[in-house]
Amino acid sequence: MNLLWKEIRHNPLLWLLVFVPAVFVAERVWHDAHTLLFVLSVLAIVPLAALLSHATESVAAKTGDAVGGLLNATLGNLTELVIALTALRAGQYTLVKASIAGAIVTNTLFMLGASFLLGGLKYHTQEYNRVGARLQAGLLFLATIALLVPSAVRVADDSGGPFMRQLSVGLSVLLIAAYALGLLFSLKTHREFFGSSESGHGEEGAAPWPMGLALVTLAGVTVLVALVSEVFVESVQQAAVAFGMTPAFVGFIVVALVGGAAEMASAFAGARKNRLDLSVGIAMGSAAQIALFVAPVLVLVSYVLGPSPMDLQFWPGAVVMMLIAAMTAALVTSSGQAAWFMGVLLLMVYLIFAMTLYLLPPRVQ
Amino acid sequence: MNLLWKEIRHNPLLWLLVFVPAVFVAERVWHDAHTLLFVLSVLAIVPLAALLSHATESVAAKTGDAVGGLLNATLGNLTELVIALTALRAGQYTLVKASIAGAIVTNTLFMLGASFLLGGLKYHTQEYNRVGARLQAGLLFLATIALLVPSAVRVADDSGGPFMRQLSVGLSVLLIAAYALGLLFSLKTHREFFGSSESGHGEEGAAPWPMGLALVTLAGVTVLVALVSEVFVESVQQAAVAFGMTPAFVGFIVVALVGGAAEMASAFAGARKNRLDLSVGIAMGSAAQIALFVAPVLVLVSYVLGPSPMDLQFWPGAVVMMLIAAMTAALVTSSGQAAWFMGVLLLMVYLIFAMTLYLLPPRVQ
Amino acid sequence: MNLLWKEIRHNPLLWLLVFVPAVFVAERVWHDAHTLLFVLSVLAIVPLAALLSHATESVAAKTGDAVGGLLNATLGNLTELVIALTALRAGQYTLVKASIAGAIVTNTLFMLGASFLLGGLKYHTQEYNRVGARLQAGLLFLATIALLVPSAVRVADDSGGPFMRQLSVGLSVLLIAAYALGLLFSLKTHREFFGSSESGHGEEGAAPWPMGLALVTLAGVTVLVALVSEVFVESVQQAAVAFGMTPAFVGFIVVALVGGAAEMASAFAGARKNRLDLSVGIAMGSAAQIALFVAPVLVLVSYVLGPSPMDLQFWPGAVVMMLIAAMTAALVTSSGQAAWFMGVLLLMVYLIFAMTLYLLPPRVQ
Repeated sequence: MNLLWKEIRHNPLLWLLVFVPAVFVAERVWHDAHTLLFVLSVLAIVPLAALLSHATESVAAKTGDAVGGLLNATLGNLTELVIALTALRAGQYTLVKASIAGAIVTNTLFMLGASFLLGGLKYHTQEYNRVGARLQAGLLFLATIALLVPSAVRVADDSGGPFMRQLSVGLSVLLIAAYALGLLFSLKTHREFFGSSESGHGEEGAAPWPMGLALVTLAGVTVLVALVSEVFVESVQQAAVAFGMTPAFVGFIVVALVGGAAEMASAFAGARKNRLDLSVGIAMGSAAQIALFVAPVLVLVSYVLGPSPMDLQFWPGAVVMMLIAAMTAALVTSSGQAAWFMGVLLLMVYLIFAMTLYLLPPRVQ
Repeated sequence: MNLLWKEIRHNPLLWLLVFVPAVFVAERVWHDAHTLLFVLSVLAIVPLAALLSHATESVAAKTGDAVGGLLNATLGNLTELVIALTALRAGQYTLVKASIAGAIVTNTLFMLGASFLLGGLKYHTQEYNRVGARLQAGLLFLATIALLVPSAVRVADDSGGPFMRQLSVGLSVLLIAAYALGLLFSLKTHREFFGSSESGHGEEGAAPWPMGLALVTLAGVTVLVALVSEVFVESVQQAAVAFGMTPAFVGFIVVALVGGAAEMASAFAGARKNRLDLSVGIAMGSAAQIALFVAPVLVLVSYVLGPSPMDLQFWPGAVVMMLIAAMTAALVTSSGQAAWFMGVLLLMVYLIFAMTLYLLPPRVQ
Repeated sequence: MNLLWKEIRHNPLLWLLVFVPAVFVAERVWHDAHTLLFVLSVLAIVPLAALLSHATESVAAKTGDAVGGLLNATLGNLTELVIALTALRAGQYTLVKASIAGAIVTNTLFMLGASFLLGGLKYHTQEYNRVGARLQAGLLFLATIALLVPSAVRVADDSGGPFMRQLSVGLSVLLIAAYALGLLFSLKTHREFFGSSESGHGEEGAAPWPMGLALVTLAGVTVLVALVSEVFVESVQQAAVAFGMTPAFVGFIVVALVGGAAEMASAFAGARKNRLDLSVGIAMGSAAQIALFVAPVLVLVSYVLGPSPMDLQFWPGAVVMMLIAAMTAALVTSSGQAAWFMGVLLLMVYLIFAMTLYLLPPRVQ
């Protein structure tokens, strides 16, 4: 417990933890102050995500490479997963899908682009191991094809019905299988190609916590994230209206930035320390994980938890954006070299999408 | 004739030749047993295709590099061409188009992917000459653009009419010209870049037959394939219904797998012998040949043989699949290196397509 | 003035200057002879564009690298800009947009392809610095994404209205910012990567003119181009009908070829002299400049000069063509090596587009 306290004192991000109790109090007292609840829940989720991320890495560090890699790969986006599960239980499928698409776009364009830009402003050019980036880009490309198919077919068959549900379950199983095989490839059979990036991942941050503390933190903080997420999901749409934002903008941009804030802090720190392997690994790995693990798990879980089954049929505009994001990231990371202008290119594509979503008349989405 | 007999005894695939007479007998006796006729004709086409392929290579080996390369390049997909011509004469244009699109998708995704996977299960990593793969990928990319245009324009102009027919003839001429120039490039002016792949092609299989036997086999087997194809084309749609398969699935997957079975056997054998040049050359070369030679020839021939002219306007879903297949193959073969996971990626994209076609409600296509 | 005269005597292209007065005379006498006026104005624009281009380079050569690079980058497509401005003032927005899309497609496919082919017929293989090509391809890719978004969103929101205008202005600002940052990157912070291409650019053509002559020529010829453009824009559509060409073909192909004739002459000459750096730099640089500078400037200027604001919403077919052209150019230039067949591939894609536009029934566009 002392260790946890020390960590909190050293990491200014964790001072935001004070907003966790504040959310619960505010939710009791001003139940309809959506804007206030939205702001407080955002401020509370960010430090919880940072704690979750550190706890996961500590457990991973203690359990050895293979199991640890697996843990990182499945729990690395636990915050996004818990937020999406909360929205799923509330039946807000549009928000769930927008947050999936938004997380993919935000990780590949904003997180990667800002890493390149921040690193590039300090170093003339930076190198990184492109093998890992290529694997993640390949997986991401596969996932966007899988997400493209239901939307492409929908044009002709608007009724939805059993076809779309069967297709979505089948695609989900294929994606999870591809993700598992990708882990087998990068952690087991061909791990020597992925060396630099993975070892970097382990070292990052403060020293790992002892197993007991890590496991208790993991469990306790997950519950807290779930509780705060409920307030967040309830307040986000109405707060958005108050801020003059469209629902698409909220799901795509705001939820994705909140859910990924902790990872972004790590990725940006890596870039500033000229350890771009780390940044590229976090950004591309996180995007691949959401596309090939979080999204299909949500589809399968919706049969148990949701009010009705969720399918993988996205708004066509979201499919186009995911496809462009995956292609752009694949092209940019194919060289293994970075300079500030590559970050600008990625951020420009992100700005184009964000601006379009911000301006888009609500009824279109 | 002894040589032919010896070949048959040594190659278990050729024992299936016994099904050739069986098809003709069955067709007389049980004229309406579509499922039986379908199964028998499939079993008969596979060994005939293997014989055709060997005969073509024998003629090619005897006639020297340039003429031989040309022969391989024009007769290499004779089986697919004869099946498609039979469907063309029967006026089954939907089946013709589905089998073209399916052959491109099957060769680039399934044949290439299974080669990478089979080779990768035996060897940690494999190398191949990527120059040939790049040329074929470039040609394939060109062909998918040509096939995309009529479908893209159709959205606006549904009447078909003279415009679509003129456009299809023009595109066909351009594709054949590009294919011819590609042969000139790879067999004549810049052949030194394509060395390894081509020499591998010649060596493959048993010793070449003498010219006479090869020519007779070529002529005789082509006639047999044509006769069996008639039974196949007549029975395939009704048999599909009996098996619970959609017409799109039959055209895309079943016909393509049957027509390409002989080539797949060679490609997979090459991969297991660590001669991936051969596998990549067969898979990519065959896909390019169907897109740039078989498809346009069918359009031009339809003016003579078909009940009405055929155009190059494909079902939009087929265009998307061909485009994705060409892009995926281009990306995967750009490195010149293979490992088992690249095969998994290609096969996963193939499975996504096959599953979608299998589940697709028939009226959509 | 002597120098200008000497230049004209040495360069046969400039003998066409005699058509400049001819246009003005003809416009007075045969005001309705659209075909004649069209042909004369084309013949007059070509030499004027060559003069403009030489004057710009002379000013650039005298002002030092950074300012000179900037001048070349902003005035390099002055002819296209002046023609488009004339069409803008006349309210012919369809022609303006077609000429933008056409210039991008023509530069990336026809100019680059013909350079590769002409160079490749003389040299077995040619090398060039691919860093510059990659930067331009990246910028071009960004621009096609920006131009894709309004058309993708239009499907859902046909009313146009304030959304489309706000979006177009926002995208224009982003594109100009990306272009400016790209110049900063290639001319200032990372100029060492772009060496060969830029130095080549400076040397090309005859010796630079003195500053005074260059500035006077720049101003005078710009006025002449503007005056001839008025005749051209007025006559082009009716002349097209007389020649049996569709309006889309005229905007895409004819206007783009006329506007880019001078640059093509330089690019082709470079390829024949085995200085492919120069050809690739002109073709890709010109395409990027039109997409990221000329197009957005026209949108912003339309608020001042045009009868009504112009947006960035293109005909979907044009968007597809620009996207394919940008991708094809990126793929082809990624290797830094060229042979004649790469030129054929690029030209074939161009021919596919040109043929489709030529055959397209007019009401579709």
